[in-house]
Formats: sequence, C-alpha cells, structure tokens
Amino acid sequence: MEKRTELEELGEFGLIERLTSKIKLNNPSTILGVGDDAALLNYKDKLVVVSTDALVEGIHFDLTYTPLKHLGYKCCIVNFSDIFAMNAFPKQITITISASNRFSVEAIEELYSGIYLACQEYGVDIIGGDTTSSTSGLFISISVIGEVESDKVVKRSGAKQHNLICLSGDIGAAYAGLLVLEREKATFKANPNFQPDFSSYEYVLERQLKPKAQKEIISWLNKNNILPTSMIDLSDGLASEILHICRKSDVGCEIYLEKLPIDYQTNRTFEEMKINPDVGALNGGEDYELLFTIDQKDYEKIKENKDISIIGHITDKTMGENLITPQNTAITIRAQGWNHYKKEENKDE
Amino acid sequence: MEKRTELEELGEFGLIERLTSKIKLNNPSTILGVGDDAALLNYKDKLVVVSTDALVEGIHFDLTYTPLKHLGYKCCIVNFSDIFAMNAFPKQITITISASNRFSVEAIEELYSGIYLACQEYGVDIIGGDTTSSTSGLFISISVIGEVESDKVVKRSGAKQHNLICLSGDIGAAYAGLLVLEREKATFKANPNFQPDFSSYEYVLERQLKPKAQKEIISWLNKNNILPTSMIDLSDGLASEILHICRKSDVGCEIYLEKLPIDYQTNRTFEEMKINPDVGALNGGEDYELLFTIDQKDYEKIKENKDISIIGHITDKTMGENLITPQNTAITIRAQGWNHYKKEENKDE
Repeated sequence: MEKRTELEELGEFGLIERLTSKIKLNNPSTILGVGDDAALLNYKDKLVVVSTDALVEGIHFDLTYTPLKHLGYKCCIVNFSDIFAMNAFPKQITITISASNRFSVEAIEELYSGIYLACQEYGVDIIGGDTTSSTSGLFISISVIGEVESDKVVKRSGAKQHNLICLSGDIGAAYAGLLVLEREKATFKANPNFQPDFSSYEYVLERQLKPKAQKEIISWLNKNNILPTSMIDLSDGLASEILHICRKSDVGCEIYLEKLPIDYQTNRTFEEMKINPDVGALNGGEDYELLFTIDQKDYEKIKENKDISIIGHITDKTMGENLITPQNTAITIRAQGWNHYKKEENKDE
Repeated sequence: MEKRTELEELGEFGLIERLTSKIKLNNPSTILGVGDDAALLNYKDKLVVVSTDALVEGIHFDLTYTPLKHLGYKCCIVNFSDIFAMNAFPKQITITISASNRFSVEAIEELYSGIYLACQEYGVDIIGGDTTSSTSGLFISISVIGEVESDKVVKRSGAKQHNLICLSGDIGAAYAGLLVLEREKATFKANPNFQPDFSSYEYVLERQLKPKAQKEIISWLNKNNILPTSMIDLSDGLASEILHICRKSDVGCEIYLEKLPIDYQTNRTFEEMKINPDVGALNGGEDYELLFTIDQKDYEKIKENKDISIIGHITDKTMGENLITPQNTAITIRAQGWNHYKKEENKDE
C-alpha cells in the first residue's frame, strides 16, 4: 500500500521544508530563493515581465482524469506561455497551493514533482510561494517572472495593416483531448468496470494533459532576427485571441479557414464527437500556441519554419474581423470564449 | 435593496474589465500594467523583491465578521509586510481571486475597493492577476514585487552576537481582536437577536481587521542610516519569528518578558479571556510588526524612536533561545506557531 502522510502531521513549515529542500537555483538573475520573507532578483538592464495564472479544481481541472504530476506541470506551462507571448523568457516562479485535508503530503509532492519537471525543462527557478489548507478542493496559483530586453518586447497592440498573421503548431487538439477524457469519464460513471481505451487518441490527450509552451518558437524568432509586431498565446481559442489582437491594435483581420493548422487526430476526434472541426479548432482553448503578426519583409524567413503557419493578414479596422471560407465568403469572427462563471459550458456551440 | 449582479452576467473578461478600468499606474518602474499577456517593469539597477501570500476562506478569514473591503485591504498589507521585512518597498502587485457564484459582482468590487485603498495608501500599482470561479469559497492570492538597493537588503540571517533585538509597535493585539470577534460570533449563534457591543475593543479589532504594514519604520531606518543586521515581519507570533532569525543566523537570544510591548487594551482583553497576556502576545499572530536586530552602535539612534522597543539581545548559539522572566528565570522559547492543517487551533496553549 502506498504511504499516506497527513498534511497535519507535517504542518505548514514542515510541508514547505519537505517541498522546497530539493530546489536548486540556476538562473544568474536569482539572488535569493525560498527561505526568507521574500526572494531577491537582479534583472540589471533587462525588463521584468510578470504574469499570474490560477487553476482551480472543478473549474479548470478534474482530478478523476488529471494525474497530479501532469497538473503541476500544466500549471507551469500555462504561466510560461504568457511570458513567451511577450517575446520574453520565464526565469522564476512563485507557487501558491491551497489544498484540503483530503490531499496527503504524498499527493502534494506528486503535484510538486510536475512543477519541478516543468521548471527544469524550461530553465525556471522556484523562488517562493505559500502553502495553505483549504476547506475543500485544490487551488493552484502561479506567478511567473521573466526577462526581455527593452527593444524586444512584443505586445498585443502592435499589429499593422498588411501584416501577416502567423500561428505556431496546430490548434484544437487540447480541446479534442478534453472531449475524449470527458466521454470516457461519463462511460466510466455509467459502468465502473469499463476500461478506457485511449489508443489512437495519444496526441490529443497529450496536448490536453501535458501541453508545451513555445520556447523554441521564441528562440527561433530571436535567432532569425524576426520581431513580431504583435503576439498573444492561445489559451481561450484562436477566435477569442485574434479579437484581442485586433482590438488592442485597432485593426481588422482576414483569417483563411483552409489555412487553419488542424492535426489529423484532432480532426477525426471532432468528427466522432459531431463537432465541426473548424468550429472546434477556432474556439477550443488551452492550445498554448503563439498567435503573432509579422511585417511582410519577414515572410521569406517565416515560411522556412514548418512549425509556423501563415493563416491570414491584418486589414484596416473598418473591414472588421473576418473568417474567409474556401468559397470566399466572409464570416464575422465572434469569441465563444469560455465563461467559467456559467454553470453550462458552451464552447462547441 | 442593494443591486446584485451575478458573476455569470459579466463573465471573466467583463469582470476583469469592470475591476481594472479604474486602475492608475503611478510608479516609474511600472512600464505596462493590466491588459496584455504579462506586465512589464523596469527596475534598472535595483534588486527585485518578490513575495506571495494567500488568504483562504474558512482558514484565514471568516466572512461572518470580516467585511470584504477590510479583507481586500488586509490581503495587501500581509504581502507588503513581507517586502518591508527585506528593508525594501513594495511597488506592484498581481491579484488572483477565485470566488464561487455565491459572491456577486458587487461583493467582488467591495473586495477590490479594499485592495485599491491599500495600494493607494502604500503607493503600489496593480499590474495584473487572474479572476476565476471556484466551486466553493473565496480564495485570494497576491504576489507583490518591490525594490531595494543591493547594499540595503536585510535578510533573516545576519544577526550577530551582542546585537540588540528590536520590535516595532506592540504585539498580541491582532490575536486579542480575533478572540473578541470569535466570542461575539459564538454569542450571536446562540442568540441571533444579540447585538454585539464592540466599544472598548476598538484598538484590538482594528489591529485584526485593518492591520498596518510598517512602511514608516522602514523609511525612518533608511533616513537615519540604520541598517538592521536581520529582520522578519510578525505574521505567526514573536516566539515563532525570533526562532526563524536565530536559526537562519545561527545564534541564540535572550528576550526580556517585561520588555514586551503590549497595549493596555490587548492586556485587558487577554485577561478577560483567561489567557496569560505574555503567552497571548508571544504566540498571537497577524501583528505585522517588524522584528529586527541592530548593531549596538545604533543604540543611541534607535532609542529616540518611541515606536521601537528593544526587547533583548542576540547571544551565542550555544546559549539557546530564551525568554528571561522578571525573576531572572530563563524559559526556552518554543514556537506554538499555527498549524492550519490541524482541525483544532491551539494558539493559546
């Protein structure tokens, strides 16, 4: 039987000691990590980039099908992604975890092991946080701090008419993975002897459970001296994010439906679920790909990178935000987004 | 009747827009605030100081007697206090709020009004955050970023033998205030027609519900060229915090019981509650005063400040950590601390 240590046996200080004793600091900008009233960083002449994202049990994740290690990993990725979206690199995080007595020390360690792994893979130091109890459920909030040279910052607001709209990787897969997990959960509820079969869904499940942040794309853009004019990461779906860019940049856009990069497995999963793949890909969240705009002068360089698709271009604001079908019909883009204050989720409508 | 807007009417983006539209940025180090993937700060040649603290409903606060505005205010103070404890000044915060549908938009705005007030009073910019729903309860996590010159940093680890141990303000009051609130809640539960009478408890209640962070002490120390050798803020009680300093600094201490600064109202409240005032003052948390050590050369300057008490001195490690009674008996200091994973709170034992 697996060992179960109750949180109250260790107490807050004991738990923090156990979770943080293995932390090694690697970044030169980290001067002081866990163990004092605050951490100390030295960013010298670089800008400090800061973002915060929280994941809440029952809202953002379901522990019936999310292993704790994957959850810890994903919480980090979600945050790193925001830093990459500024054309910056994440360097430090602080972690707040609030867990009820339902969770053992070993469970929290499992969660932390995913956080460690993500930090190790992306070269990020854990510099502090808070670990508290909750009356129910699990709540994780991460603040991430990154660095960028002041002339390299890319905001949402710099897109200009005639810019090309670029997208890394492919989209819709994380949402397709979620649909598979939800279907298997429902089947399991109806018949607890049911053994879920996840073969042929590996890609979409990995995209949902162990997403990537786009460090390689940012490194490649930097190495090739391409400075996007605007950028955002895809957390709420392409439709929602392109509207953020258009509104912040005061421009319109045309996105070509046939250019949307959708993986074969994503496509097949949506079809199985009777969801139009284009609709699923446009509105499904959690892909953590980068959506960015470039000046046309960079076109020759961009087209060399097979991980980047050019999906449209920026227009004058008066043209609005449009999706162009293969039949050359323009459809106004609307954000389905995801209102998690609503009881019913309507992503796929 | 007061207006109640449901969170789902606004959705996440609507709520964020409503909460953040009034934010003004005042610090020169804040380059970009809310509204992009991340915020941007420029700390130039100063060190970046980072800390995170969370407050969870049912664990750290009880909404039956904590007004939401006070709660928002206090969440900020708790975090600012950690930055002051590094001899630094808070400049920016990010806020994560997770609230169930039980809370209306107006309730969240009330919470934010306290956050705004604290930020305004302490000169701090709100630069980002995340607002999500929860399945139950209210969870608030704040990350605070501050600045300090590299030669002004004060850690927990610098205390040296013969240093004087100093304490700002007075202690035990916040805990005494909590006891009053808990008593009135119990009385109200037994008899719902009961009207609580808080007169003659104003000071201890204010210390519990609207604490201060010690900006003035830090400013005064800086102005008078006093660089403490070590420092910590009192969140878990003096007994617990002095042990942190001793362990991090590898020293012992003697604290004189008769030197503990305890307000008259605090004293009287503890007596009413049949708690030994010294025990209550030593172990009660949430005072957010500063505990620090100074070199003896600074004694003449320190004694001019009526808000600072000298309560003991640092000894060699082999002497241990001792409380000296008026009868000159040494009692080993033990941290009662506060294990919030335990169902029963035993602060006053």
